[in-house]
Amino acid sequence: MAKIKVGVAGYGTIGQRLADGVAMQDDMELVGIADLAPTLSLQALRERDMIGANGVEYKLYLVDGADKAAFDEKKIPVAGTFEDLCKKVDVMLDSSPGGVGAANKDKYYVPLGVKAIFQGGEKNSVADVFFHGYANFEKGIGQNYLKLTSCNTTGLIRSVDCLDRAYGIEKVAITIIRRVADPGDYHRGLTNALQIDKAPSHQAVDLMTIMPHVHATGILVHTPVTHGHIITVVAKGKQKITKEMALEAFEKHPRIRVVRIDDGFKGNASLFKYARDLGNTRGDMYEIGLWEDSIVETGDEIMYAINIPQESVTIPETMDAVRAAMNMQTTSAEGTAKTNEYLGIGKFKSLGL
Amino acid sequence: MAKIKVGVAGYGTIGQRLADGVAMQDDMELVGIADLAPTLSLQALRERDMIGANGVEYKLYLVDGADKAAFDEKKIPVAGTFEDLCKKVDVMLDSSPGGVGAANKDKYYVPLGVKAIFQGGEKNSVADVFFHGYANFEKGIGQNYLKLTSCNTTGLIRSVDCLDRAYGIEKVAITIIRRVADPGDYHRGLTNALQIDKAPSHQAVDLMTIMPHVHATGILVHTPVTHGHIITVVAKGKQKITKEMALEAFEKHPRIRVVRIDDGFKGNASLFKYARDLGNTRGDMYEIGLWEDSIVETGDEIMYAINIPQESVTIPETMDAVRAAMNMQTTSAEGTAKTNEYLGIGKFKSLGL
Amino acid sequence: MAKIKVGVAGYGTIGQRLADGVAMQDDMELVGIADLAPTLSLQALRERDMIGANGVEYKLYLVDGADKAAFDEKKIPVAGTFEDLCKKVDVMLDSSPGGVGAANKDKYYVPLGVKAIFQGGEKNSVADVFFHGYANFEKGIGQNYLKLTSCNTTGLIRSVDCLDRAYGIEKVAITIIRRVADPGDYHRGLTNALQIDKAPSHQAVDLMTIMPHVHATGILVHTPVTHGHIITVVAKGKQKITKEMALEAFEKHPRIRVVRIDDGFKGNASLFKYARDLGNTRGDMYEIGLWEDSIVETGDEIMYAINIPQESVTIPETMDAVRAAMNMQTTSAEGTAKTNEYLGIGKFKSLGL
Amino acid sequence: MAKIKVGVAGYGTIGQRLADGVAMQDDMELVGIADLAPTLSLQALRERDMIGANGVEYKLYLVDGADKAAFDEKKIPVAGTFEDLCKKVDVMLDSSPGGVGAANKDKYYVPLGVKAIFQGGEKNSVADVFFHGYANFEKGIGQNYLKLTSCNTTGLIRSVDCLDRAYGIEKVAITIIRRVADPGDYHRGLTNALQIDKAPSHQAVDLMTIMPHVHATGILVHTPVTHGHIITVVAKGKQKITKEMALEAFEKHPRIRVVRIDDGFKGNASLFKYARDLGNTRGDMYEIGLWEDSIVETGDEIMYAINIPQESVTIPETMDAVRAAMNMQTTSAEGTAKTNEYLGIGKFKSLGL
Repeated sequence: MAKIKVGVAGYGTIGQRLADGVAMQDDMELVGIADLAPTLSLQALRERDMIGANGVEYKLYLVDGADKAAFDEKKIPVAGTFEDLCKKVDVMLDSSPGGVGAANKDKYYVPLGVKAIFQGGEKNSVADVFFHGYANFEKGIGQNYLKLTSCNTTGLIRSVDCLDRAYGIEKVAITIIRRVADPGDYHRGLTNALQIDKAPSHQAVDLMTIMPHVHATGILVHTPVTHGHIITVVAKGKQKITKEMALEAFEKHPRIRVVRIDDGFKGNASLFKYARDLGNTRGDMYEIGLWEDSIVETGDEIMYAINIPQESVTIPETMDAVRAAMNMQTTSAEGTAKTNEYLGIGKFKSLGL
Repeated sequence: MAKIKVGVAGYGTIGQRLADGVAMQDDMELVGIADLAPTLSLQALRERDMIGANGVEYKLYLVDGADKAAFDEKKIPVAGTFEDLCKKVDVMLDSSPGGVGAANKDKYYVPLGVKAIFQGGEKNSVADVFFHGYANFEKGIGQNYLKLTSCNTTGLIRSVDCLDRAYGIEKVAITIIRRVADPGDYHRGLTNALQIDKAPSHQAVDLMTIMPHVHATGILVHTPVTHGHIITVVAKGKQKITKEMALEAFEKHPRIRVVRIDDGFKGNASLFKYARDLGNTRGDMYEIGLWEDSIVETGDEIMYAINIPQESVTIPETMDAVRAAMNMQTTSAEGTAKTNEYLGIGKFKSLGL
Repeated sequence: MAKIKVGVAGYGTIGQRLADGVAMQDDMELVGIADLAPTLSLQALRERDMIGANGVEYKLYLVDGADKAAFDEKKIPVAGTFEDLCKKVDVMLDSSPGGVGAANKDKYYVPLGVKAIFQGGEKNSVADVFFHGYANFEKGIGQNYLKLTSCNTTGLIRSVDCLDRAYGIEKVAITIIRRVADPGDYHRGLTNALQIDKAPSHQAVDLMTIMPHVHATGILVHTPVTHGHIITVVAKGKQKITKEMALEAFEKHPRIRVVRIDDGFKGNASLFKYARDLGNTRGDMYEIGLWEDSIVETGDEIMYAINIPQESVTIPETMDAVRAAMNMQTTSAEGTAKTNEYLGIGKFKSLGL
Repeated sequence: MAKIKVGVAGYGTIGQRLADGVAMQDDMELVGIADLAPTLSLQALRERDMIGANGVEYKLYLVDGADKAAFDEKKIPVAGTFEDLCKKVDVMLDSSPGGVGAANKDKYYVPLGVKAIFQGGEKNSVADVFFHGYANFEKGIGQNYLKLTSCNTTGLIRSVDCLDRAYGIEKVAITIIRRVADPGDYHRGLTNALQIDKAPSHQAVDLMTIMPHVHATGILVHTPVTHGHIITVVAKGKQKITKEMALEAFEKHPRIRVVRIDDGFKGNASLFKYARDLGNTRGDMYEIGLWEDSIVETGDEIMYAINIPQESVTIPETMDAVRAAMNMQTTSAEGTAKTNEYLGIGKFKSLGL
């Protein structure tokens, strides 16, 4: 069977990880990547001879407005224009800055008949379906334009959907302790301050869009750190969910890594360190962390805390989205299983670790 | 009526604010303070000619093990020993490091017949009553040994007790986003990391001790900032509590300051800045902040976020404790009103601000 | 003798401290302050009944473009327009955002014959003299438009000028470890990152403008903290300067506070804490800190480290500038002495502390 | 020729990188690693099936006092005791906590005739030679006990030695802007504070030990960040060194990476990001960064700023130390060239990047 041809627009924090994700899928072909300027990420790719994950060469196409001379100066080879790339792919993973994806859709994707998967920065209206690999895979099947949930929402839904499938969930109240910037990010930051957003947070609202049978609200507080959001969830089940029941469900989920403080997982920075020590590229992790020691029952509700590796957490669900949009698999179970297999997700669970 | 004679053991972050608090109470006399070493706080007091709040001279007594020569070298005058101080006071506010208060009790307070109010760092067993000025004032009346709740718990209970009195509260689930150090603190810290504690947090457990009719649980996450904890609370009322109902109750509470993001209160650092601009000593604030924009309803529950100024929040409730222990007032309403009057708490509410 | 009539344009971080500084000068009258929007600082002033330092009422005037209704909503009284204020003053201290001062000059100060003192954010061309109270007071005498050095440069020059007067200085190489935001600042920040600027830093260049007989260069690195810049200085004297010689000169300078690590001054946050404990308004300090333990000789050069309290350090030199511009005193020694007297600077030195 | 048999004692931040470094040297064999407890780093290694760099299996030996049951619980296989490991190796790279290395020497290395290379945490007296691969390789040849310079000193000496070889250096004055913790470090930290050490810094003193013909002094300031120290250096040459001369020398050095702010290298976090994007394991970098834009001349001195990747910078020089101690090469040029070849250092320079 022919591989699905995939492009990635925007080689930033998310884009470069999407490109790696595609390169790791045996049933997809990374046709190329596109960007505007010779960023550090592209300079690093050049230093790697343009070789990315799995030994795949990443061909670079330039989006409108790019200054080719700037790429030449950095000796970064260019394969063509963004339009060239669009013409070669079945589906584009658009991780451009917010708003650019919508413009790309109008100018290229619709006229050229290219499907597209957008990231959380675009407005929902850009897409036919607001998508999550586990919670509503089936809605994405065969669709032309999908939008992924943001990093926090993606990880949050994994955990809520996990409990929902096992026991039924009626309501959640979340507190998002948000990392404010990624490592190496100099264009935004916060210094010795917590910052609160108006409630309810968009993540709670987005969860209700994806899981309309669950009521959700929440408060978001930004914190001056770079490694992983932490979310606390107060969830009310259709039945009483005990700590043991919750833990049993979480332990089985391939994209949830249950960790313990006594093992050394003291916080978000421990998970980043662990992923670095695992040898994962860029110290990334696809799984969310979930602290066993955080799970507490409160009356008829259950409370727990998760860690969201913001740079990489949406990669698996985006691969799922390609599978749905391209009819590669037709159920959430099959689609996510293929993604997990190629990304190496959940292997450690079989080790009994 | 003779003033109640009060001493303060430990002139650290809390102790110096307790001394100021006492000096501001017209019906109390600050007999003296006690400490072990010529810390920066005592060097600063010396530079002020030993004059503290309200123009009161702070007489310094040395605790066991203090090196008087070190004080002489810094030209800090010494009035006597800790035992001398104990013999002159009716009640000692003990803000010594954790564990020292219990030793002080055995060695001095019990033998000398001095009442004592301990801070949150001591074990509950040190005291006859675990005390909060609003939630259980009456239990402290005439007692010899009281222990205050910690800073987070003190502020948290203010808000929960406020709703409980107005509408009845059955259950709360809290997320504590804890500042990890005070400004100027070099003996502890956290750098670019969030750190999670085992659940349930002690603050939830403590709340249940003070308010036994409320079920509470919670998760605590440390964050690398110095100005004010933020706590989110998910509270279930005996009746449905709407946003308007909650707001109405919070607005009336003297020790709760309702603030809005649009007014410029973007987070904990805004409240610190505001207190500095108010001209408050050390940029302190006695009130907790409560964001109007954070209040959201979720089914039969209400959710909101508060800010805890950790260095100063327990001062009013400690003054309340003196009032209870010394039978100065006999109801929470009267006791807290006196404290508020002398500390200038809630005056701005009468301005309609 | 009639008091000099002074206005303050911009009631931000610097402006509110300038207003306080003026209110503390017995030979100046604070006619009013001006601003654009009801910021937190103005809301706090309102909560204080518009009473600032020394019990002085701060009358508020609105600059062009201000929305009076927004002030009314916050119950902040307004005394008139910026033009009204300009017509009442001899000299305006302009601490508007960068660029606004230059526009104010053209529109108001020149036409109305008002002198003005600008802060470091304006371009040098806005002023007749680039001014420092100690290093070139005489150049400012009788001038109409003066511009102050920035916070780092002001503190740096104090220390270099101090050595220069005592022993002669030929050359300095500085490293500025810059705090990136003020407490409560949410519009800029840096998270877990150091950021380097292109060398030479403007502070080195500015020093050469003020002290043309000294060669200076330097590197600036931004750090994610809010309390005080630290600058290391490598200085070459016209003669060999020993540690003892340097210390002797620094100890005598009223605006330099020599501190020691062993006394508890471990870093910039210790100095902020100390100023809070001194009871200084907002926890401010006018003096720079200078670590005795940092002074080391290196061949024919001397190296040392200073702490710059960025929010308040320029206030004394701005008062000096008023004195120079208004011919209130005619030498640096007399002008700075008056400023110091009214601001209470250097008093602790007479205590032998 | 038989491979040199190497062990690594302590699989912490440095130890795991040393193990990787050895595994990458074609002329060395990593016999095993040793540690005390099943840390996160060892749990991660277990999840990798104990396979480290270059596909090498890392056999784990337990040091005295280790609890084997704790390793069994984590399913981490154990190959034997530390004594077993010592008996199998020619040289041990000891990256135990400070002080443990000295005890290991007395108990195992001397009795068993094993050479050892210690890291910067041990006292100088533990070793025969205080070693740097470029600055004094020859002194380490054939010696039994070598101690490496610390991370800051290692990187600093690279740059000073580079200029010294090219033009002669007489004197340096350094300012170390030190990162206070590594990513994932929860046992130390600093929050919103800079902390200054007594001068001169040990790094300056250490430089003089390694390069006795250079006078050095310096000041160290700790900053609350985790990615890379920044050091500014004011260096006096035996001749006038221009910016062009300095740059020419730096560009040629294999272990110095000259970077530019305009290319996106804005600070230490940019270099960490770049190393992650390069796909380097753990996001590590062996080279120090040196900002072209930081180089400035000041009279007869030259000033510049470097970035020290603290977790990995000493790995190459430790490999050099093995080469010297084991007589594998007999000159700095040959020894460092072999290390560089196997670690892939400096390859990008040949690309003209």
